[in-house]
Amino acid sequence: MSGLGEFGRIARFLRPLAAGCPGALDLTDDAALLEVPAGRELVVTTDAMVEGVHFLPDDPPADIAAKLLRTNLSDLAAMGAEPLGYTLVLSLPRALDDGWVAAFAAGLAADQERFGVPLAGGDSVATRGPVTVAVTALGHLPRGTALTRRVRGPAAGQLVFATGTIGDAALGLKIALGELACDGGAALLARLRRPEPRLALGAALRGVATAAVDVSDGLVADLGHICEVTGCAARIEAARVPLSAPARALLAVRPELLAAVLTGGDDYELVFTAPPDRSAAIAALAAGHGVAVTDIGRLEPGPAGRVEVMDSAGRPLALGPGGWAHFAAG
Amino acid sequence: MSGLGEFGRIARFLRPLAAGCPGALDLTDDAALLEVPAGRELVVTTDAMVEGVHFLPDDPPADIAAKLLRTNLSDLAAMGAEPLGYTLVLSLPRALDDGWVAAFAAGLAADQERFGVPLAGGDSVATRGPVTVAVTALGHLPRGTALTRRVRGPAAGQLVFATGTIGDAALGLKIALGELACDGGAALLARLRRPEPRLALGAALRGVATAAVDVSDGLVADLGHICEVTGCAARIEAARVPLSAPARALLAVRPELLAAVLTGGDDYELVFTAPPDRSAAIAALAAGHGVAVTDIGRLEPGPAGRVEVMDSAGRPLALGPGGWAHFAAG
Repeated sequence: MSGLGEFGRIARFLRPLAAGCPGALDLTDDAALLEVPAGRELVVTTDAMVEGVHFLPDDPPADIAAKLLRTNLSDLAAMGAEPLGYTLVLSLPRALDDGWVAAFAAGLAADQERFGVPLAGGDSVATRGPVTVAVTALGHLPRGTALTRRVRGPAAGQLVFATGTIGDAALGLKIALGELACDGGAALLARLRRPEPRLALGAALRGVATAAVDVSDGLVADLGHICEVTGCAARIEAARVPLSAPARALLAVRPELLAAVLTGGDDYELVFTAPPDRSAAIAALAAGHGVAVTDIGRLEPGPAGRVEVMDSAGRPLALGPGGWAHFAAG
Repeated sequence: MSGLGEFGRIARFLRPLAAGCPGALDLTDDAALLEVPAGRELVVTTDAMVEGVHFLPDDPPADIAAKLLRTNLSDLAAMGAEPLGYTLVLSLPRALDDGWVAAFAAGLAADQERFGVPLAGGDSVATRGPVTVAVTALGHLPRGTALTRRVRGPAAGQLVFATGTIGDAALGLKIALGELACDGGAALLARLRRPEPRLALGAALRGVATAAVDVSDGLVADLGHICEVTGCAARIEAARVPLSAPARALLAVRPELLAAVLTGGDDYELVFTAPPDRSAAIAALAAGHGVAVTDIGRLEPGPAGRVEVMDSAGRPLALGPGGWAHFAAG
């Protein structure tokens, strides 16, 4: 139960999150003031999560907070933006324990510090429905340098790259749902619950990559978004898709899980494109940021949005209707 | 029922709302790009509304949309900011009819045109709970000119002003709940459902007013916020509080409704402070913008946050615990 009430919760748990943001005015004013550095464009994105849809009622509140903030930061990363601040909307049942809010705020506090992004403002409302949480993340980048889903320059022949490893979150979801158990399962579950927004690498890819997207709907679906907007096709090689050690071990004994790896969502890695002559520069950036970057295929002329995944014999794989059925745009 | 599904709804109803915002990238990208003019600070605010708490299930969706957008714009107005754009989060039951979303979007479209503010981005999620809608509004103003709740300059002796008329929304709520019926009731109900954000006047008050707030929690509570942050008290005269014709007629026969007028929320008028020597300048601005502005009292030394309302005999009125019990901060 809430012994503190709405105002008490804001004062106790949320106001400290705004301490690093003078323009948040201690969350006591009508709005917050933020400074976008000269010559920079503002970047804005928003994502919400609903109990029973995006997380389970007994998930740790700090994990929910981390995922909410990180998925929004991942959208900034995919544009190449640097974070400026965020606003938060909490829709909470009146019966929710104050301890839940405290743990949620602690999760935000840890990630604010980690990613250097303060709370700028928010709203807290009562609901008779499930816990619903939303973040609007604000960032900035030099004017005209945003990485979008539309490939700059002639698309055909450009390479497709992926950061980190792909498919861990889809396998982690199967573990969370009790459909799968394996060695290294905790690491896969952690990848589902605490994705790593590629902020520093995303910013470094401005002027190097020609398009980028973060993997929220699934590798095939998100690369498909790039192809659709650009008006091209893509062909990737399944054997080149980067896998974590536990994912690789799982696929060795259950190869049918490849479809989940390629089409499952929630990885929040970056998929981006660049001409082949930038491969060395990209490898240097990857090394400099300590993030694996793998060339997994290339863009081709062809029907807009078509993504073919080839097996090791050079035959296209049938993956069924591509991608995780997500409700979110962006 | 949704025959369109989430992506179909976004494409059909929300994408057209972003047509006036090139940086929204047709809502197909990870984030939106917005330009904050040189020398200007970014202003950001967020407010949410929940079915069964902030609106009734059978309220017209266009009214819900208008109120959602306008209450956020009112927060910008209270800072003196000019609107730049907004993002939207829709949490919708799967069984909700597409027609509801169409009518909601039509309400947004009309207000976007009226207030010159485009949709920049958003998220749409499914929920098993009530309809929940949230807006984050973005605005801007010349650096250092924001009107906050903290009074600039010595507070005691400064005048307190209110725009428009006060208390209509509280009376409109009683009409909506079936507790009241009167001549002019439709006008009071309209004031509850379609508040008028004082954007132009708010911007014009930069450099003239010394503090401002919008009346969301109630006149007494919101003026109390100014006093609390500033560390002063205030005294206002009940007879000077500006009333609409239907409110005045109602109070003539039911004087006990005065408490609702003074402490009821949702008016979204501006309450602001200024030294007495600015009264003529303020009257000129009011005339120029076609918005009534009334001097209703003054700031005084005294306990931080105390607001006294005096009757026509100069005696303080007892209003009980002040203000509408709102869940929202900001």
